[in-house]
Formats: sequence, structure tokens, C-alpha cells
Amino acid sequence: MGAAVTGRGLTAEGCIGVFDSDVGGLTVLDECLARLPAEDFVYYGDTAHFPYGDKNVEYLRERSMRAATWLVEQGAKTVVVACNTATAAALAHLQTHLDVPVIGVMTAEAHAAAYTTRNRRVGLLATVATVQSGAYERMILAHDAGVEVTSVACPRLAPAIQRGEPYDETIVEMVREYTAPLREARVDTAILGCTHYPMVSRLLRRNLPDVTLITSGEELARELRESLRRKGLLRSAGREGTYRFACSGDPGAFRALGSRYLQMPLGDVARVPLDDPVPAGRA
Amino acid sequence: MGAAVTGRGLTAEGCIGVFDSDVGGLTVLDECLARLPAEDFVYYGDTAHFPYGDKNVEYLRERSMRAATWLVEQGAKTVVVACNTATAAALAHLQTHLDVPVIGVMTAEAHAAAYTTRNRRVGLLATVATVQSGAYERMILAHDAGVEVTSVACPRLAPAIQRGEPYDETIVEMVREYTAPLREARVDTAILGCTHYPMVSRLLRRNLPDVTLITSGEELARELRESLRRKGLLRSAGREGTYRFACSGDPGAFRALGSRYLQMPLGDVARVPLDDPVPAGRA
Repeated sequence: MGAAVTGRGLTAEGCIGVFDSDVGGLTVLDECLARLPAEDFVYYGDTAHFPYGDKNVEYLRERSMRAATWLVEQGAKTVVVACNTATAAALAHLQTHLDVPVIGVMTAEAHAAAYTTRNRRVGLLATVATVQSGAYERMILAHDAGVEVTSVACPRLAPAIQRGEPYDETIVEMVREYTAPLREARVDTAILGCTHYPMVSRLLRRNLPDVTLITSGEELARELRESLRRKGLLRSAGREGTYRFACSGDPGAFRALGSRYLQMPLGDVARVPLDDPVPAGRA
Repeated sequence: MGAAVTGRGLTAEGCIGVFDSDVGGLTVLDECLARLPAEDFVYYGDTAHFPYGDKNVEYLRERSMRAATWLVEQGAKTVVVACNTATAAALAHLQTHLDVPVIGVMTAEAHAAAYTTRNRRVGLLATVATVQSGAYERMILAHDAGVEVTSVACPRLAPAIQRGEPYDETIVEMVREYTAPLREARVDTAILGCTHYPMVSRLLRRNLPDVTLITSGEELARELRESLRRKGLLRSAGREGTYRFACSGDPGAFRALGSRYLQMPLGDVARVPLDDPVPAGRA
């Protein structure tokens, strides 16, 4: 284990650090803001390195470590990995090297899906890397070995969402195609296994009628609240939390898409590239 | 009763007609599309006469009658009034003068709110006309006379939503102000009593943490499905329904806002002013 970034002496006054490859993690932040209105949040979008979905594990670990370390430097009392690909590749690495609690997506959704399905047929829509890791399937089966999981890799979906609204016939067709195996398998529950996907939840829902959609944001926000409560790190109600944003790429593009999704102005978005050489012994 | 527009001999093959003063009713249509994927829909936005919230009852009855009549002429087997103001002013009038079933918003949400609240404190956010009609409060009390209803008229909210995204500090402040009486009253359930409001549901939710938000769209879509089923007018599953749009004002503006909200292209939006003189004896 390298020189740990220390989070000892954590107090409720710290902020919550959230990162993703881009704006997708805002679907997680949105749920956190709604459920934890008294908390302060700092969000980092690694937009200069989007998408994470086609990168290798070493690369993802390094970028995740840089983002998480920066968030701890900003005073984070907990770091949220709001990206399924980064969680699969780097969560354990971050947890071993950082002293603050690090929470990722995936486990909570796997749990929710196993307990939500009635016909024990669960669908998964995710990036190529996430589907290939097999992590969701393993975690679902750990809860109920009798569940049949139908996984679909959707390589073109997150980039199409990233390109932004309004949506045309191309994305409508794409979603119809990606959801077809789930309709065929007659799943009654589906995990949106990429934090970008809730941005087209209306489109997905029309293609999966009567299917319960499980999102990372909703499940993670529940888990985060529970974790802060148990650790005594929850802020007292009554105050209104603050939020600020940083990204490694173009702040203007991030602000436009983010403000539209969150339905609020983002304020100044700082450009923080995190491209310095990695100090020896840290990553 | 004037010359009725006849809907006798209704069959499942008819479409579902939906109208509103503008794009707000698309939040209702969205829920209907997700719950009734095999049905065909025709949507009419009376955009040249937005907002309905400050118009008088006679005017609203006439505009509603024109929109509903046009929808029946398009083959509607049921007409949905996807606007709270028009429902309060004109639903009974339409139901008496048209032969097809006409379903409005409000009753379903009032029912849902009365059964959802645990502390029996329900909030209502709506237009001036809807709040002044007292209709929601009467309907909630009809279900449970012990519920305390806190109603807030939000005259600037629907027009601000209509102006469109992205959202700035003005609308954030506006929502904070309109929701303050609900926080003060400690409601645990709130009705979004205007079909525009779900378009800023993320913003509303952050201002009403731990409050269950009841939307017209979700409740109405349930009621519509149940009504069609009971009347034997439900299409068989398996086919993919169609949709088309018309409005009385500028089709371009309607298409831009509508496509962004529904997350799909709207296709050609027809301009249908419905400004001909009313035939004698009809309205």
C-alpha cells in the first residue's frame, strides 16, 4: 500500500466528493442532493478522458486515484465513485489506498434488482467494460442464484447521450435495438448499469413497459445516507448544502449539459486537469 | 345540450386524444406512452392561447370544446384533458357535450394524495385558477376530512418552464419561495397540480426533501388504462403505437421543447388554429 491520503479525524463538516468520467454521475449527484439536502458536494467530471467504457484497468485506476485524491484534498469525508466502469476497475484500489470511506455503484443496484424481480429475470444495460467484467451478474447471483440475468453491452449509448439533446431517430432506434433482448427475455426488472442512462429514462421506459428500472443514483444515495448515518458523519438538517463543480476538459460544455440535467445553474465550473506526474509510491 | 359530437360505436382501434394549453400535457402523455405502448395518440397543444391559468371559465370551456371536438374528429375513442386549469373549468362541460369518454386530471391525484400521506398534511402547488377553484382541497377532504391541505398558487412557474431550459438562478429562487409554505407546514405529500411542473421535478424534489410528489401524469395514466380496460377499448399488446402532434401556435417552438422533454423526435407538428366561428348550438 502506497502513501495513503489520510482522512482520519473525519467530521460531519466535510463535503461529499463525487466523480465520474463526465456528466453521467450527475444522475447520482441529483439523487444525493435530493436525499441529503444539508450536505456540501464537490463533483469532478473527468471530461477530458471520456469515455471510460473502452479504457483498460490500469488507466482507469490511475484516473480514479487522481480524481479521488483531489476530492479528499477538497475536504471530502466520503468519496462516491459515480461511474460503473470506474467502480468495476478501481473501487477496491481506492478503498485500499485512501483513508476516507469510498462508496461505489453496482452492489446496491444488484441487491435492489434481486429483491425487486418477481419472475427472477433481470436485465442489465451497461458499457462493454462493465458487461465483460461480469460483476453485476456475480453480485445478483450472490443474492439469489436462481435469477436469470440478460446482459446487453450498449457501446454507442453513453456517447450519444453525451452528445446531448434533443434526441433524434438514431438514438430512438439505438435504444429499441439495445432493449430488444430484454423484452425477448421477458425481464420484469432491469438495471441501468451506466450512470449516463437515466438521462434518457423516458426513452428507456417506453421501450421496457412494465419493467422496473433500477438506477445507480437512487440506490447509491440510499446507501450513502445510511453509511453517513452509521458513521456519525451526517450533517444536521436545517441548513442548505452547497455544491461546486470541476472537470478536466471544457467547462462550458460541462456546464451546459449539467445545468440542463440538474435544472439549476452550476456556477463557475473549474478546469482541473489532474495531469501532473503521479508522485512515486502513490498510485 | 347542443349537437353532441358522437363517439357511439367506439372500438379499441380508435386513438387517444390528449390536449393541454401547451407542452405541459406532454408530462401526462409521457406516462401514457410508457403505460399504454400499444395505443395510438394524438396530442393537441393550444399554444396560441397559453397560459390557460389566467383565463375565465367561458373562454376555457370554448377552447377546450374546440380542442376536444377536433380530437374526436381525428378518431379519439377517449379524450384526456391534460391540464388542471381546463379540467377545473371545462371537464363537466365536455363530458356532457361529447359522446366519447372524457378523463381529466385532479380526481386521481386527490385520491392518491389522501392515501399516500401519513401525517395527513398535504401540499398543493398549482396555478392561481386551480387554487382558487378549491377543487383539489374539496376532493382530498372527500377522501379524508382530517387532512390539512396547504395550497400555494405559483403564477410565475408554468410561464418560466414554458420559456425553457437551461434553468437559471431566477427559477431556482422562485421554486424555493413557492415551496417554503409546504416545508413550513411539514407536508409529507405534495400534489404537482399543474402538468408543467413535472418538467422541473428535479428542482422541486430538492426543495421538498422526503416529500412524496404526486403527479397528474402518473395517476391519470393509471386511470386511463383502467378505464380503457373496463370499457373493452384497450388495444392488444404486441403492436407499437403511433403518435402525432398538432398545436395552434408556432410548431417549431412546440417541437423543440416537446422533443427535448419526451426524448424523441416529434415528427411533423401540424398547425391547427381551431379559430373558426363556433357552429350554432355546439358550444
